[in-house]
Amino acid sequence: METHKKLVLGIFGFGVVGEGLYKVLNQTPSLNAVIKKVCIKNGIKKRNAPAELFTTDRNILLNDPEINVIVEMIDDADAAYEIVKTAFINGKSVVSASKKMIAEHLPELLELEQKTGASFLYEAACCASIPVIRNLEEYYDNDLLHSISAVVNGSTNYILTKMFEEKLSFKNALLQAQQLGFAESNPVLDVEGYDALNKWTFLLTHAYGILPKTGDIVFTGIQSVTAEDAQQAEKKDCVIKLVASAKKLKNGKVAAYVLPHFVKKDDQLAFIKNEYNGVVIESSFADKQFFYGKGAGSLPTASAVLSDISALRYHYKYEYKKLHHHKPNELSSDFYVKAYVGFTDWNHIRKDDFESIEEWHSNEQINYLVGIIHFDKLKNSTWWKKTNVSLILTADPVIESLDIVKLKKRSLELAGFSGGYSLS
Amino acid sequence: METHKKLVLGIFGFGVVGEGLYKVLNQTPSLNAVIKKVCIKNGIKKRNAPAELFTTDRNILLNDPEINVIVEMIDDADAAYEIVKTAFINGKSVVSASKKMIAEHLPELLELEQKTGASFLYEAACCASIPVIRNLEEYYDNDLLHSISAVVNGSTNYILTKMFEEKLSFKNALLQAQQLGFAESNPVLDVEGYDALNKWTFLLTHAYGILPKTGDIVFTGIQSVTAEDAQQAEKKDCVIKLVASAKKLKNGKVAAYVLPHFVKKDDQLAFIKNEYNGVVIESSFADKQFFYGKGAGSLPTASAVLSDISALRYHYKYEYKKLHHHKPNELSSDFYVKAYVGFTDWNHIRKDDFESIEEWHSNEQINYLVGIIHFDKLKNSTWWKKTNVSLILTADPVIESLDIVKLKKRSLELAGFSGGYSLS
Repeated sequence: METHKKLVLGIFGFGVVGEGLYKVLNQTPSLNAVIKKVCIKNGIKKRNAPAELFTTDRNILLNDPEINVIVEMIDDADAAYEIVKTAFINGKSVVSASKKMIAEHLPELLELEQKTGASFLYEAACCASIPVIRNLEEYYDNDLLHSISAVVNGSTNYILTKMFEEKLSFKNALLQAQQLGFAESNPVLDVEGYDALNKWTFLLTHAYGILPKTGDIVFTGIQSVTAEDAQQAEKKDCVIKLVASAKKLKNGKVAAYVLPHFVKKDDQLAFIKNEYNGVVIESSFADKQFFYGKGAGSLPTASAVLSDISALRYHYKYEYKKLHHHKPNELSSDFYVKAYVGFTDWNHIRKDDFESIEEWHSNEQINYLVGIIHFDKLKNSTWWKKTNVSLILTADPVIESLDIVKLKKRSLELAGFSGGYSLS
Repeated sequence: METHKKLVLGIFGFGVVGEGLYKVLNQTPSLNAVIKKVCIKNGIKKRNAPAELFTTDRNILLNDPEINVIVEMIDDADAAYEIVKTAFINGKSVVSASKKMIAEHLPELLELEQKTGASFLYEAACCASIPVIRNLEEYYDNDLLHSISAVVNGSTNYILTKMFEEKLSFKNALLQAQQLGFAESNPVLDVEGYDALNKWTFLLTHAYGILPKTGDIVFTGIQSVTAEDAQQAEKKDCVIKLVASAKKLKNGKVAAYVLPHFVKKDDQLAFIKNEYNGVVIESSFADKQFFYGKGAGSLPTASAVLSDISALRYHYKYEYKKLHHHKPNELSSDFYVKAYVGFTDWNHIRKDDFESIEEWHSNEQINYLVGIIHFDKLKNSTWWKKTNVSLILTADPVIESLDIVKLKKRSLELAGFSGGYSLS
């Protein structure tokens, strides 16, 4: 019964995660994993571990034949890519938490992984402590997965929670998130949706066997969401979340995006508050499962890294079945969405883009419309990403066919709604 | 890249789940699985499938060399055991949803599974649509799992929800559950905790590598929970749930039980309402994950069965790593719990069993105490299971050491609480 593999680790980075790993592995000999060497940037800093553990030369780790696993949790995506590539070529397996690097380089890394037979695990890179990659990979078969929607960025979720619960402005909520360490001092990557986009890019590989480029996915962040938008959400018994979503369409293709979203207060996504993450998976027979946990921070990240290390003892690797064994899926933008758009000036809105406008309000306090727009129009334009325009999808926004829509448009025209503001 | 195994299925049972499976497999040829034969009890009944699909002779399925997977979802645990045993011996893999059978026969079945090399999957048997077995098996390593607590029985959870939200009596809530199909016409198995106990028995195998007998686990149901108990819970800002729990103690052993429990309203378990199930897993670095979904019913069950079938195409089997590769774990009853006990007559309570009583109230409307009791005392007595006594663990009830307790006892004595009712 000997399938236990002895793991000798080389670690890149010794921040709180790295140090936590070091402690736990020391205290848990049954894990059968030891850290042989840690590569750090700053060789002078005092560390809570013997000095001989450390080096600033990455080749000492990468060229050590005894080290069979590289654990890499560094911020620099380009450096991380070089490290992982070399590790594979040198016959080592890799545990990674570098979402940006994975989003940008997964195709090349998969090719290399297949050639070298190495294992590449990265559960920590998306939703940290929630084992979403493992479940998509192992449990939710392609043909059984109807949709997946998720809150994958804790910073933006913290900000939105505070805007709702404490009626803070976006600015003050962001400030509070930064003070508490839930947002970076440069929050652009989180706030404008880049972090969620990176995670969603490779999540789509595990969910549907698609290998998209980040540029293929329509996305934005919460930078334009205002206290007024939050009020409108409240009136509709909703909260606002930055939702990453993917859904199998009737044409067999996949609709995917990362966009702000109205979420009904009794929806499971609304349960996800503050810095938490959560994933709702809808599988065959239309049943929903909900996975919830901490999505970032040192401890949840370390917990995911540890589970990956533990799995390597049993030679586990992602098989990317949906990519290799199934008819490949592809993204589609051939569908419509119903969206709320808040604005300060009607001229910022490209009204011709809408198939129909079902609702609009305009007064000194609040300007918004609710309309139906083809997804291609969002994909091929940027007006809705500009300052002073906040596009927020409605709850259950995807519309595959237009028949009902035409009827509604007609009914609105009949009701005289297009009178004041010409729609065409 | 050919690891796709063609599955030829023999199905036992053609209720809603079986019929649903039949439809989905017909509609999804990419799943590469066909149903060759279905064994039913009642051969006369009209079915929504060709007559030649059916037989009442189980040997026609079990002896067909072309059938490589038996899917068995029948109620009779003894018959199910015979079917699974024969299937293994005849070289077939098995997907099962028979929790009682698994709870009672897992040790023998594991032995047989190892001998024959068959695969035995049963995700549908616990929490149906929530992939809890798969996650415990693959993701939460023994040494990284601190605790797991769960609501695993939908009927009792429905009843408790109605007792809280609509202030129904236990009787009326049960009646409503029966009318809606969330409880059996003979509800004893659910209501008195047997169903949850069965599920917890084999969940402990996947969580901690323990193979307990059902008799090893302290349990009861919700049959004695009263509207007055619910009121007391409300006062403590709690709800009552039937909680299945397991926790690693400092002595390295595992504390496990299935008991009614006060649950703080902001606890994740309190989010689980009506017929839903949910699991909270606490892993290394003290982080909590929450898994939530439908735990019973034809559709969630079919969804879990389908995922198991799909996994068999890739030769998946549970490896029972925690049982085979780790130092075996064992159950312990060497700890204390803090419990609320509602009662009608003080004489029904075996007061000497308590180490200390921190609180008691007695008047015409309500009689209850809150005290600390050694778990062995619960294990070796039945007074707390009798009618008119409702033992409900407090939130966070497990106490490993007694020092603080002694102090509290002393403080109560000093305060004169033991005056009216002698404690020893």
